[in-house]
Amino acid sequence: MKLSDITRPFGRGNQDNNNNDLGFGTRIGTEGERLINRDGSYNILRKGGAGWRPYELLVEMPWGNFLGLVALFYFIINAFFALIFWGIGVDKLSGVTPGNGFFEHFVAAFFFSIQTFTTVGYGAVSPLGIWANLVASIDALVGLMSFALATGILFARFAKPKANILFSTNALIRSYRDTPYNSLQFQIVNQRNNKIINLEARVTLSWIEELNGELVRRFAIMELEREKVFLFPLNWVVVHVIDKDSPMWGWDKKDFEQKRIEIIILMRGYDETFAQDVHANSSYTYDEIKWNMRFQRIYHSSGGQTVIELDKVNDMLPMGEEEE
Amino acid sequence: MKLSDITRPFGRGNQDNNNNDLGFGTRIGTEGERLINRDGSYNILRKGGAGWRPYELLVEMPWGNFLGLVALFYFIINAFFALIFWGIGVDKLSGVTPGNGFFEHFVAAFFFSIQTFTTVGYGAVSPLGIWANLVASIDALVGLMSFALATGILFARFAKPKANILFSTNALIRSYRDTPYNSLQFQIVNQRNNKIINLEARVTLSWIEELNGELVRRFAIMELEREKVFLFPLNWVVVHVIDKDSPMWGWDKKDFEQKRIEIIILMRGYDETFAQDVHANSSYTYDEIKWNMRFQRIYHSSGGQTVIELDKVNDMLPMGEEEE
Amino acid sequence: MKLSDITRPFGRGNQDNNNNDLGFGTRIGTEGERLINRDGSYNILRKGGAGWRPYELLVEMPWGNFLGLVALFYFIINAFFALIFWGIGVDKLSGVTPGNGFFEHFVAAFFFSIQTFTTVGYGAVSPLGIWANLVASIDALVGLMSFALATGILFARFAKPKANILFSTNALIRSYRDTPYNSLQFQIVNQRNNKIINLEARVTLSWIEELNGELVRRFAIMELEREKVFLFPLNWVVVHVIDKDSPMWGWDKKDFEQKRIEIIILMRGYDETFAQDVHANSSYTYDEIKWNMRFQRIYHSSGGQTVIELDKVNDMLPMGEEEE
Amino acid sequence: MKLSDITRPFGRGNQDNNNNDLGFGTRIGTEGERLINRDGSYNILRKGGAGWRPYELLVEMPWGNFLGLVALFYFIINAFFALIFWGIGVDKLSGVTPGNGFFEHFVAAFFFSIQTFTTVGYGAVSPLGIWANLVASIDALVGLMSFALATGILFARFAKPKANILFSTNALIRSYRDTPYNSLQFQIVNQRNNKIINLEARVTLSWIEELNGELVRRFAIMELEREKVFLFPLNWVVVHVIDKDSPMWGWDKKDFEQKRIEIIILMRGYDETFAQDVHANSSYTYDEIKWNMRFQRIYHSSGGQTVIELDKVNDMLPMGEEEE
Repeated sequence: MKLSDITRPFGRGNQDNNNNDLGFGTRIGTEGERLINRDGSYNILRKGGAGWRPYELLVEMPWGNFLGLVALFYFIINAFFALIFWGIGVDKLSGVTPGNGFFEHFVAAFFFSIQTFTTVGYGAVSPLGIWANLVASIDALVGLMSFALATGILFARFAKPKANILFSTNALIRSYRDTPYNSLQFQIVNQRNNKIINLEARVTLSWIEELNGELVRRFAIMELEREKVFLFPLNWVVVHVIDKDSPMWGWDKKDFEQKRIEIIILMRGYDETFAQDVHANSSYTYDEIKWNMRFQRIYHSSGGQTVIELDKVNDMLPMGEEEE
Repeated sequence: MKLSDITRPFGRGNQDNNNNDLGFGTRIGTEGERLINRDGSYNILRKGGAGWRPYELLVEMPWGNFLGLVALFYFIINAFFALIFWGIGVDKLSGVTPGNGFFEHFVAAFFFSIQTFTTVGYGAVSPLGIWANLVASIDALVGLMSFALATGILFARFAKPKANILFSTNALIRSYRDTPYNSLQFQIVNQRNNKIINLEARVTLSWIEELNGELVRRFAIMELEREKVFLFPLNWVVVHVIDKDSPMWGWDKKDFEQKRIEIIILMRGYDETFAQDVHANSSYTYDEIKWNMRFQRIYHSSGGQTVIELDKVNDMLPMGEEEE
Repeated sequence: MKLSDITRPFGRGNQDNNNNDLGFGTRIGTEGERLINRDGSYNILRKGGAGWRPYELLVEMPWGNFLGLVALFYFIINAFFALIFWGIGVDKLSGVTPGNGFFEHFVAAFFFSIQTFTTVGYGAVSPLGIWANLVASIDALVGLMSFALATGILFARFAKPKANILFSTNALIRSYRDTPYNSLQFQIVNQRNNKIINLEARVTLSWIEELNGELVRRFAIMELEREKVFLFPLNWVVVHVIDKDSPMWGWDKKDFEQKRIEIIILMRGYDETFAQDVHANSSYTYDEIKWNMRFQRIYHSSGGQTVIELDKVNDMLPMGEEEE
Repeated sequence: MKLSDITRPFGRGNQDNNNNDLGFGTRIGTEGERLINRDGSYNILRKGGAGWRPYELLVEMPWGNFLGLVALFYFIINAFFALIFWGIGVDKLSGVTPGNGFFEHFVAAFFFSIQTFTTVGYGAVSPLGIWANLVASIDALVGLMSFALATGILFARFAKPKANILFSTNALIRSYRDTPYNSLQFQIVNQRNNKIINLEARVTLSWIEELNGELVRRFAIMELEREKVFLFPLNWVVVHVIDKDSPMWGWDKKDFEQKRIEIIILMRGYDETFAQDVHANSSYTYDEIKWNMRFQRIYHSSGGQTVIELDKVNDMLPMGEEEE
């Protein structure tokens, strides 16, 4: 078996055979580490030369961290200006009583700086002379530019489109309709009433195999019963039939574990509220796949409307049991 | 008849047969409730786990609600700071006369807070001591961040692209040109002079049918005389010919009602003003379809220009009558 | 000849035959009025029900009008608040001398309102009592929201992507290389160093013809020697060869005029600076087409760089003459 | 050999033969100057009629220049208003001592203008009379509009999507796997953990050739072993096999130099953080191509994660040598 065989496609319709590895390559993760985390991020550490990208950091950090950083910056920048005003001398700030200790003077200069930085400018304290005025002018400019920046970042944080797609915690294996075949299924729901249009799923199977004494990671596209929905009003049970064309054909639960399989899911749609393409990724590893279960139905008709219960997205029943 | 037959396509060219149901599934709305409201929103209630999405709420609520919410927030946040200033003591606000009752003190603190929050800072009232100054500093920061946020949301509200496509209130059934066939037609107009480019229509028929004693909802793509216009300068009468390939072939008005049909329309184009894709959806149910009517012509030449009268989009005449 | 023949395609490759009219329909502009203006806008008047779209108006109006409107709004809104302050009484504005005439009081209230609206708040004048404070609070809120809005609109005005494609003022007809055929050509240049990628041209011929005693407008796609460039670093001479497959085959200058032809051009590309698709449209009518001319070369090598002279985009020479 | 032969495609699959020149044309750069600079910009000088595009300039200039320009504008606009206040007379600015020299008065007016422009408005100085108030009103409006603009531009500067793709400094020529063929290879890495999806590469060879005594530039598409990756988590070694279908077939190092070849690379993908398409271009000239080298592996498994070392993107070894 040659290396070029590794990425050979399975079954029907996989013409783009050299794209099966999704860009990971066959030598990555051969110790069995997961490739994609449950939240869709890469399980990869990037070292050296990654550069400093303040915008992305500020847009992507959690809200708590962001607000903490804003408060910290607010304190430090004004403490900095306070020191300069103190250096010039508090006698150049009308309304501040000179002759006190450093702490009193610093505090007065600090709050004066804040009043300038925020452009509140009560005027109870105001600058005297060229130097104090000059520093105050810079202070106000820096303040306004900082808030300009904060405006942009706040907007970007809020406006960043998210797919709002809820994945079931587990995938499952169950018989497929009246066929003798099994199928792998997972469920997604649209968390919101906003429209996701033309939602497509691309599911890839990844597993580890020995090749000439070396462990390599292999990839294969998993064909879906349905690859696209035009609207996504409710839920979608994504189904891969494990027939003879499936890369999983003939594997049992033990094979899943031994091959340390991972189901990698890429979803793509268009969100009307954000007027942008949205993407959602996730993955299921072998220990997140339940056998012989089925999803419960999560919507019903009521009062001329269809009602969907989002918190039931992961509700499963053993195959034999009746729906409650 | 098997379940898998339900989504079998009709007529020519419907290769993507498993997409006919648009994502609704065949078990939804079998009591005959409408799937898509006239304004294009889903007729669906979402329960449990939908999460709190303040950005989308703030961007999508009506203008009156939005401005009311802004005013309410403005009042509450300043009342909150007023209470803190009152707690610290009005003697720490120079310019406020101490010794009055709670109401006078609270009102003074409230307006001082507003002057700080908005960064007006007249200075007739100004903070004294570390605590009052500290609270005022936070007040101003919260104020600036709030307005930063409001700026972003206002911008998003305004900049949200809308297709500005006006649908005729009713669809109609009329004979198709010189053919022996009927056709289903509805009219859309571009409400504005901005350019919508590459406008596409996708029309799906949905109806209810009994299958093995169970009511199921069926879907079929309706082929159009024309599926796309490159420019959309005026109006577009979207036409589906009811020939032998049509899912409606042989149905009369009574069938329409019995099958509780719904015509679901998805439109997609590119708007040059917003430089973004725009979408518009709508639907017609059986009681919104008029038989043996035709649309009046809504544009004419005048003074070297073409004049279009938008308010005539729904003007119809019985088939025999002459144009006025 | 039947109506359905009118939109029959010409020559090779026009499979999407019912899209030839671009969305104008065959009954528009049969008096010979132009369909698309030179700047790419529609020559159409829209009446009734167009709705009020303040955002688009504010984004698309010329800069002079926009700034004038801002100034006008600034004056009117503050005059309005000035009247309210005057109604409450200038004795409620500390710093304003009471007992003067209406004009003096109004002016004082007007400038106080401006100081509040802009949040300058010098404090030389400040509100007294609940009512004056309340109005001042609303004044400041309205001011901040107005500037929030102005920020968004200013940004949208600036950030609106434009294709920056310069069209030659005239199209021309000249012999095509060593062939016996003529060709219709026009030239476009990229005005800026920013990258336009995957630029495509779609050119449609429109002309007027008598059909059963009625004038109808006909449309045909004009095949291009080249329909797309991957990069657009310099100029592009778009060429349509008038061979036997061309809708113009056999037409001379007189036919052009009689048929009142119009060449409608739609261009589409992706702009890297704006990270958005950009579109540019234009049209040439029969009197804007020159016969037996050719474009001069507008770039040359110099000092290890290629130099392009943008103002030569329309420089033509009669076919026989030598390049200067 | 005819001119039309110049753009004839090589080998398999180049059906779109007339797009090979990417839009540069065959007469450009025949003195051997580079077409695309290493940073992806065009090596082109644009003269005449390019128009003034302040937005693009402000968005694309380096941060140092931008901040310098902001500071300069801040100084000049306030100096301008200071002159007007000085013209009206400092006696109309309460708080400024009249009777001093021009410099003292100008400085006082300058800082008053800054306090108004930034809306700090301490109030230690405030305007008296209609004219001083009117100018102060305009000053504040201009200030607010300027900061509105600055907010938009700051946001655009930060939010401008960049592909963050690091190209290896050199391309290399090495034998291709077990085949008798050589291959041209270069390496790219994703500098950040954000997702770039559906990354495509398009590589074009450009070289200079004599044709009928005239130097012309020729172009040919270089087929890639793989043209697209779905995800781009790590690195991608882009490989062109120099087999019989390659335009480089049979060329040695000396040919590369004589033909002054340039490898032009266009990359395109979708960035999830920015929710936008991103593009990255670069080029390698003959003197940037190393022979008989190979790239070192730049990632390894460690602690359940894959670690990638970005600063090794250009690390090469001679073909015979062992990996360290």
